[in-house]
Amino acid sequence: MNLFRPEVQRLHGYVPGEQPQDAGWIKLNTNENPYPPAPKVIAAIQQAAEGRLNVYPDPLATRFRKVAAELFDVEPDMILPANGSDENLTILLRTFISPGELVAYPYPSYILYETLAEIQGGKFERVWLNTDWSWNDTRTQSVVKRSKLFFVPNPNSPSGNVWSDDELLKLQPEKGVLVIDEAYADFSEPHSRLHLLQQDGGNQRVITRTLSKSCSLAGIRFGFAIAQPELIAGMRKVKDSYNCNTLSLAAATAALEEQEWMRKNVRKIISTRNRLVTGMRSAGFNVVDSETNFVWATRDDGCSEIFEELKLRKILVRYMRFDGTMADETIEGLRITVGTDDEIDGFLSAMTEILGS
Amino acid sequence: MNLFRPEVQRLHGYVPGEQPQDAGWIKLNTNENPYPPAPKVIAAIQQAAEGRLNVYPDPLATRFRKVAAELFDVEPDMILPANGSDENLTILLRTFISPGELVAYPYPSYILYETLAEIQGGKFERVWLNTDWSWNDTRTQSVVKRSKLFFVPNPNSPSGNVWSDDELLKLQPEKGVLVIDEAYADFSEPHSRLHLLQQDGGNQRVITRTLSKSCSLAGIRFGFAIAQPELIAGMRKVKDSYNCNTLSLAAATAALEEQEWMRKNVRKIISTRNRLVTGMRSAGFNVVDSETNFVWATRDDGCSEIFEELKLRKILVRYMRFDGTMADETIEGLRITVGTDDEIDGFLSAMTEILGS
Repeated sequence: MNLFRPEVQRLHGYVPGEQPQDAGWIKLNTNENPYPPAPKVIAAIQQAAEGRLNVYPDPLATRFRKVAAELFDVEPDMILPANGSDENLTILLRTFISPGELVAYPYPSYILYETLAEIQGGKFERVWLNTDWSWNDTRTQSVVKRSKLFFVPNPNSPSGNVWSDDELLKLQPEKGVLVIDEAYADFSEPHSRLHLLQQDGGNQRVITRTLSKSCSLAGIRFGFAIAQPELIAGMRKVKDSYNCNTLSLAAATAALEEQEWMRKNVRKIISTRNRLVTGMRSAGFNVVDSETNFVWATRDDGCSEIFEELKLRKILVRYMRFDGTMADETIEGLRITVGTDDEIDGFLSAMTEILGS
Repeated sequence: MNLFRPEVQRLHGYVPGEQPQDAGWIKLNTNENPYPPAPKVIAAIQQAAEGRLNVYPDPLATRFRKVAAELFDVEPDMILPANGSDENLTILLRTFISPGELVAYPYPSYILYETLAEIQGGKFERVWLNTDWSWNDTRTQSVVKRSKLFFVPNPNSPSGNVWSDDELLKLQPEKGVLVIDEAYADFSEPHSRLHLLQQDGGNQRVITRTLSKSCSLAGIRFGFAIAQPELIAGMRKVKDSYNCNTLSLAAATAALEEQEWMRKNVRKIISTRNRLVTGMRSAGFNVVDSETNFVWATRDDGCSEIFEELKLRKILVRYMRFDGTMADETIEGLRITVGTDDEIDGFLSAMTEILGS
């Protein structure tokens, strides 16, 4: 007897990047920050651990929302904290998508959007980007018109490029919601497109942020959405009452108060990124200019064997392959997280060894 | 323009018990454990805080599942950890309920089941219990037959009573899943109905557990489901990859290893509960025999004014009113969490004052 919903039965499930639990890896596969969170963040967790863990957390995350609202110069009612940005993406699907409604997103990009659409019983369409990661306007407009939710990571993954306000605004569904996923925005200029929420049509836009990347807190699972209060109020009805725990709320609040620590790490990562890009280009890769903490590198003769060779040396990067409906649309490459200088040195010398052999 | 799904637009949203953020309250409204978690739990969090928070948690929760599997004498593949038991309830809805399918549960009981069914676009039916909290077989069977998911908290809330194996097995949908919500089972005998998973039909049953109550960890949001591996595999496809964070995983693992700490607190709570029940009965309340960390107390002349009077004295209990389709089905009362002896003394003396005035 099959008890599952047909959508769940069919689903392969999203496969996240590997998380090896043993030591000794150079781990450059899931865009984690190689530097630790601010000491005040760790202190805030340790203090909260000695507090009242026997009681429920504040379901309204009052203190976190106050600090976030001040930092982003918005009202607290425009902030929705979540158990990782992934939870906010799930909440968006459950708030806006009825069976059969259309979810669209650029391709190649973050395929979790598609998995979440499938779970929700929505339809999805991929909008193929041009090979230079720009939008094909004709192709795009025909999809935008029919979309209820349009997700756009800005900067994009795996490419690392950023789109302008004008390009983003063309993705706004007339009767739907544009979600700008700013997971990597702290690594780019400007650091956010928050001003797009204040413009005409801003009440049909949601910005999602995470502390996993720039704030070095992938381990605590914390993200938040920013949107006009009316949209946030609807999303809040869908979320679990106590979706963020006492410890992650304490850590997240402290992390937002430690902007200079985050900025310092971002500067280090950008400096290492420049070395990585140069090294990869010297090694014969095509590398997209990145505004994130990773780079996307391709080769005319393919990358899958290089990925396997790196893995044998306990260096983990992300091999990604995006298949299209036409043979010439297949894109494959390596997405390499910017680690410490030492990690990137180790990676580049392994790469030289592999390519030389 | 209404962008929300019609189900979300209609939804009032579940209203959890109040969580006052200021000090000085005797808080007996959300069934929290008045005692702190084990010192080793706090130490485990503090150690994890100094670990690698910059990387993602183990998406498979390998270590937690190993410890839980040993404790409950099942395979690790039968365990699904979640961000609070509420998340597992949400996952159950999203795994099994297509639009229009039926979710049923006893009434009065935990009305979140109904809110989650509404969000998912399912239908729900309340199965009214007899006034002595037993099941009306005729009424029940007509609903069970049509259910895809049947939720039963055992022990039940707000009543605190427990149902037998035989009574639970009658709630098994022929072509659906029976969920036994064991949030309070550590306070009852037997401590779990896990053996029902091994019997005929056990592959259509799910048990949900939480660390919020008996383990004093409402603040870390951690629950887990236990079921045959095939059901867990389907539910796992629906959950976010990294739904539990590094800190809550460390705390939860340590908490399961500290059974004696939990048992000691449970014994204290049961002893205080006996005093509370005696005191409430002396004060003229009808009190159900409880196998949980709360008691359900009613009066023929109503309780809402008493609730307000208590609140004026900074004593928070839960006033609950369950309306039926017939006027004589309305049930209202106070659900009082068993706090420390001091808290219950404070509560009982306030009650004496209120009733005497």
